[in-house]
Amino acid sequence: MIKVAIVGGTGYTGVELLRLLVNHPQVEIQTVTSRTEAGKNVTDLFPNLRGHLDLKFTAPTQEKLTTNDIVFFATPNGIAMQDTPALLKAGVKVIDLAADFRIKDVAIWEKWYGMTHNCPELLKEAVYGLPELNRAKIAKARLIANPGCYPTAVLLGFLPLIEAGVIDLNDLIADAKSGVSGAGRKANTPTLMSEAGESFKAYNVAGHRHWPEICQSLNICAGTEVDLTFVPHLLPMIRGIEATLYTKTLQPIDLDKIQELFIQRYKNEPFVDVLPLNSHPETRNVRGANICQLAVHKSNNKLVILSVIDNLVKGAAGQAVQNMNIMNDLSETTGLMNVALSP
Amino acid sequence: MIKVAIVGGTGYTGVELLRLLVNHPQVEIQTVTSRTEAGKNVTDLFPNLRGHLDLKFTAPTQEKLTTNDIVFFATPNGIAMQDTPALLKAGVKVIDLAADFRIKDVAIWEKWYGMTHNCPELLKEAVYGLPELNRAKIAKARLIANPGCYPTAVLLGFLPLIEAGVIDLNDLIADAKSGVSGAGRKANTPTLMSEAGESFKAYNVAGHRHWPEICQSLNICAGTEVDLTFVPHLLPMIRGIEATLYTKTLQPIDLDKIQELFIQRYKNEPFVDVLPLNSHPETRNVRGANICQLAVHKSNNKLVILSVIDNLVKGAAGQAVQNMNIMNDLSETTGLMNVALSP
Amino acid sequence: MIKVAIVGGTGYTGVELLRLLVNHPQVEIQTVTSRTEAGKNVTDLFPNLRGHLDLKFTAPTQEKLTTNDIVFFATPNGIAMQDTPALLKAGVKVIDLAADFRIKDVAIWEKWYGMTHNCPELLKEAVYGLPELNRAKIAKARLIANPGCYPTAVLLGFLPLIEAGVIDLNDLIADAKSGVSGAGRKANTPTLMSEAGESFKAYNVAGHRHWPEICQSLNICAGTEVDLTFVPHLLPMIRGIEATLYTKTLQPIDLDKIQELFIQRYKNEPFVDVLPLNSHPETRNVRGANICQLAVHKSNNKLVILSVIDNLVKGAAGQAVQNMNIMNDLSETTGLMNVALSP
Amino acid sequence: MIKVAIVGGTGYTGVELLRLLVNHPQVEIQTVTSRTEAGKNVTDLFPNLRGHLDLKFTAPTQEKLTTNDIVFFATPNGIAMQDTPALLKAGVKVIDLAADFRIKDVAIWEKWYGMTHNCPELLKEAVYGLPELNRAKIAKARLIANPGCYPTAVLLGFLPLIEAGVIDLNDLIADAKSGVSGAGRKANTPTLMSEAGESFKAYNVAGHRHWPEICQSLNICAGTEVDLTFVPHLLPMIRGIEATLYTKTLQPIDLDKIQELFIQRYKNEPFVDVLPLNSHPETRNVRGANICQLAVHKSNNKLVILSVIDNLVKGAAGQAVQNMNIMNDLSETTGLMNVALSP
Repeated sequence: MIKVAIVGGTGYTGVELLRLLVNHPQVEIQTVTSRTEAGKNVTDLFPNLRGHLDLKFTAPTQEKLTTNDIVFFATPNGIAMQDTPALLKAGVKVIDLAADFRIKDVAIWEKWYGMTHNCPELLKEAVYGLPELNRAKIAKARLIANPGCYPTAVLLGFLPLIEAGVIDLNDLIADAKSGVSGAGRKANTPTLMSEAGESFKAYNVAGHRHWPEICQSLNICAGTEVDLTFVPHLLPMIRGIEATLYTKTLQPIDLDKIQELFIQRYKNEPFVDVLPLNSHPETRNVRGANICQLAVHKSNNKLVILSVIDNLVKGAAGQAVQNMNIMNDLSETTGLMNVALSP
Repeated sequence: MIKVAIVGGTGYTGVELLRLLVNHPQVEIQTVTSRTEAGKNVTDLFPNLRGHLDLKFTAPTQEKLTTNDIVFFATPNGIAMQDTPALLKAGVKVIDLAADFRIKDVAIWEKWYGMTHNCPELLKEAVYGLPELNRAKIAKARLIANPGCYPTAVLLGFLPLIEAGVIDLNDLIADAKSGVSGAGRKANTPTLMSEAGESFKAYNVAGHRHWPEICQSLNICAGTEVDLTFVPHLLPMIRGIEATLYTKTLQPIDLDKIQELFIQRYKNEPFVDVLPLNSHPETRNVRGANICQLAVHKSNNKLVILSVIDNLVKGAAGQAVQNMNIMNDLSETTGLMNVALSP
Repeated sequence: MIKVAIVGGTGYTGVELLRLLVNHPQVEIQTVTSRTEAGKNVTDLFPNLRGHLDLKFTAPTQEKLTTNDIVFFATPNGIAMQDTPALLKAGVKVIDLAADFRIKDVAIWEKWYGMTHNCPELLKEAVYGLPELNRAKIAKARLIANPGCYPTAVLLGFLPLIEAGVIDLNDLIADAKSGVSGAGRKANTPTLMSEAGESFKAYNVAGHRHWPEICQSLNICAGTEVDLTFVPHLLPMIRGIEATLYTKTLQPIDLDKIQELFIQRYKNEPFVDVLPLNSHPETRNVRGANICQLAVHKSNNKLVILSVIDNLVKGAAGQAVQNMNIMNDLSETTGLMNVALSP
Repeated sequence: MIKVAIVGGTGYTGVELLRLLVNHPQVEIQTVTSRTEAGKNVTDLFPNLRGHLDLKFTAPTQEKLTTNDIVFFATPNGIAMQDTPALLKAGVKVIDLAADFRIKDVAIWEKWYGMTHNCPELLKEAVYGLPELNRAKIAKARLIANPGCYPTAVLLGFLPLIEAGVIDLNDLIADAKSGVSGAGRKANTPTLMSEAGESFKAYNVAGHRHWPEICQSLNICAGTEVDLTFVPHLLPMIRGIEATLYTKTLQPIDLDKIQELFIQRYKNEPFVDVLPLNSHPETRNVRGANICQLAVHKSNNKLVILSVIDNLVKGAAGQAVQNMNIMNDLSETTGLMNVALSP
């Protein structure tokens, strides 16, 4: 059994990790930490876990954390980087669901996240945990930077095209829409139901932290700097991301060929599902499941890729468990085969 | 392996049965029928099942159905009663998720359902599939009438009190609220999102088909006729039923005693969860899970019981699987241990 | 023109007052105050008012407020009572949309609101601003306690029956459901969309501040103490309250007679609409409108009254404007004739 | 008083017209037709209109319609074209809220709408009723083709740029999202709340009827054929359209200049509101109001325009009333000054 701790277990990625891990056959959840809720039953905060988990929140101490094999950080940005050096030193592996280790260039990270990184020396070692891109490195990693939700949806849609070299790298648009759970469980006026319900808007058009994260991976794949326009939007619903991607092929290509390119790219991927031509993936198809559904289209002179994930699963906790499975040489799908809840 | 067929697999109880059964370790889904969709992949209609089920809808034929051990009817009312006699004769067990076999008195059934019953002789044999009430009979049954969604939520809340003989049987009120999935997948103006979204109303105050069904079981438990007022309401959400039950104790009783009574009544029930005193169960606590959460309260001179279920799971497909497990002498929780999806 | 100020203009009752008052032909909005937003354009916070209002938030000063004829307090509980004595002394009338002046008995108020009242001497003078009950007093009042949202919906449903003396005063139940805007615009985890969306729950079953407020008016009407059980619930939508009221007639009475009793009671009321027999009012029927729709039903041995309002309009800002109209001898419907937004 | 009839008054554009017209000071609603509901009170179907309208639905007859000054068609596509020739001959003006007269080229119309046009001779005369584009022609028109909802949002966003000749006409993308009321009140499985709620998807990527309509106006403005990629999406909410438009300027231009260009273009437009730089318009800002809010942004190498309307108001009924005002030489804002409902 893999002994795991979850640091910051009071947010949505924390409870989602718990939902997946309580039924994972190879995992023993030893520790769930929260400074504010220490001493309280986890199920008092998350009654959906009643009958599945008999643990209390504890304050996070190095001592407690080091009794585990893997520590998941489901914390706000800037927390994981404080504890990670000591944990690694103690032989504990770390999967950070926040952004602390996602950007290789510390200057870029510090600009976008507005703080000083306290272990930049680990940025090089950290593996960006997108299994479809970095599976081999993940298998050997001590430290995983679990990808952001938008980046997961956008990258899986663009990768086959960029790897195949068929599109204009100066003409990439990601029009992305996310449910409000992406904003977390923190009390906040803009994500009150009265504010976010029954309405829709773009936000952060001038710049969103996931933009440099997406660009970093696209640039690596492309071997050059790409030009990506990324516009996030807030959906009046809880779970789900849809990204509609627009680009142009360098040469005219039949849509059948593009479809084939996607199918080949993902044929061995358990969690990327290329839908038949002319499909329109809905976010509910993947609600609660660790799946990315993709569909390719042409519209006028553009190629249009549709990508949907559950932001809390393939966009966070599910992908973290997938990374854990890979790191532990388990079947990658272990504990991740539940069916999406629809309707 | 238990070979099962689902008749009428295009509605919400059908797809929910499939969601649960594709991961059930003892079940092999052989047949999913639909007259209108015959020949189409089940996953074309329900893309959340992609990767989990490789079956096409077929037209329902007696021949095909009798190759199964159990046939689930996830059909509109009045369909199951047409095929059931022949299936039972052929040695196939039947679980009807519709209402055909729920009411023992054929006259009452025909009045409320507006049609002639075509196998009234089976009404006596049919077992009302509420495991918390009829477990032993279910284990030996050939024909299960799977309870309605409202009745499940209301009965589990009233049963301990009636069995204990502590309440005024002439003063029972169930103020029940259901998500729109309870109305099914049929095209229908009142359940369009533009009609049912962002609004709330009572409906069928003058009479709802679930009223005689609830009364039947309450009467049996009470050993006399009870007086139940039942008012259903439509919630602007998809899944979930909450029932707020009001009654009066015959004698003053401490709330602690009532709490203890509930705990004792359900202590061996895997799918009924009595929350600590002063709890307020939310429907999301049980979204996708086969659980009924209950809480007891006093308010002024009334006893107030709060009961929540997922109408498609403990109120339909999950309870059907629970019944199937009991009928096959499997552990009752097999295939039903997934955690509720929250948020 | 009536010069008005709105104190605490950053909440939902504040913006709703502004929505109604910018088009009121007899009102000039002079002042909108907010300590936190002082200096900012009101339309920066509430872009729905762009083109209708050209004012900045100002800090609330006695000097500024006393230049108005009427001051509306759309503040948290406990604020209005601090400024009201001086305003009245300066000849300014006050309409408090919070609870500071709703309860006549200061001990009860202090118990439920957890603070010391700082002008209990005004409680006797304050008029409870339910026009259907206190129109004549409102016309002459200097100080209006604008009713709570739940109390408005519940009182309008029970009043005809209690005034007519036809029901058992020991058997009153109000099962009430409210949209999340009732909880205000304050950042708060339980009303995040991820928490309150797609879910439903009862809350505060053990006691809610609106219970003593409702009882106070019912007791006055009844001339004795009534026994009311009140259970509030949170709806996954923004606007609207539905109250399902249960009671018992002392003698058997035909439903037609009850219907007639309601029609007579409200025949001259512009904002109470008794629907035809067998109706099921939906909250969307009154979204944005200053209307209470009522319907009467029988169910088993109980009388069932259905009542819907928009909590922000007839349950708050609209009723405040109605009171203002009455106080100023304007036609009561002035500025309040907009049609509900449906769908 | 302008005497008006509404043909097809049972859909959402019909009830929305009624909502606006019952309070229009210069309009007398004489006739509301519906074949299926003839004889029924309009308020039985639309209880939000109770107290505002005392009319029954009638069957549409030429005789009745010709007693009006203006007939609004709020019907499915293909109905208005049947009655319009006779109405015009009788001296009655027509505003069609459906698509019968929107496309000038009958071959294109017949291809996209799958039927034969029965009065193609009127296509030339019909004026495309976007006041911001065709005000002078509307003033003199007998027959108005009221624009589609998506086209209104998209055109108002692109027009200033195209008229100014500053963008690459081969690089226009409109990523548009609509609430479900855009799909109408017809019973239909995909717009059931259980299907469309809590989910999001693109649809009709291969082609949507509003694409040729948008292109027609863009081409006229540009004086050449533009290349527009248009992808519609379905939002889990009732009202509102947001369009995120992407294009490229031919030369580098400061965002301030673009902002100024928009402000100048719309400075005299009562219903187009250009927000300050760095704004993110939300659909709720315009819920129920006849407003288009626009904001301009840069993102990487693209210009991004955000445009929001209420699809039922500026995208349908409100724009129709605006057109009626212009045709009757009334102040354009008459009856259209209600404030958007937010929250």
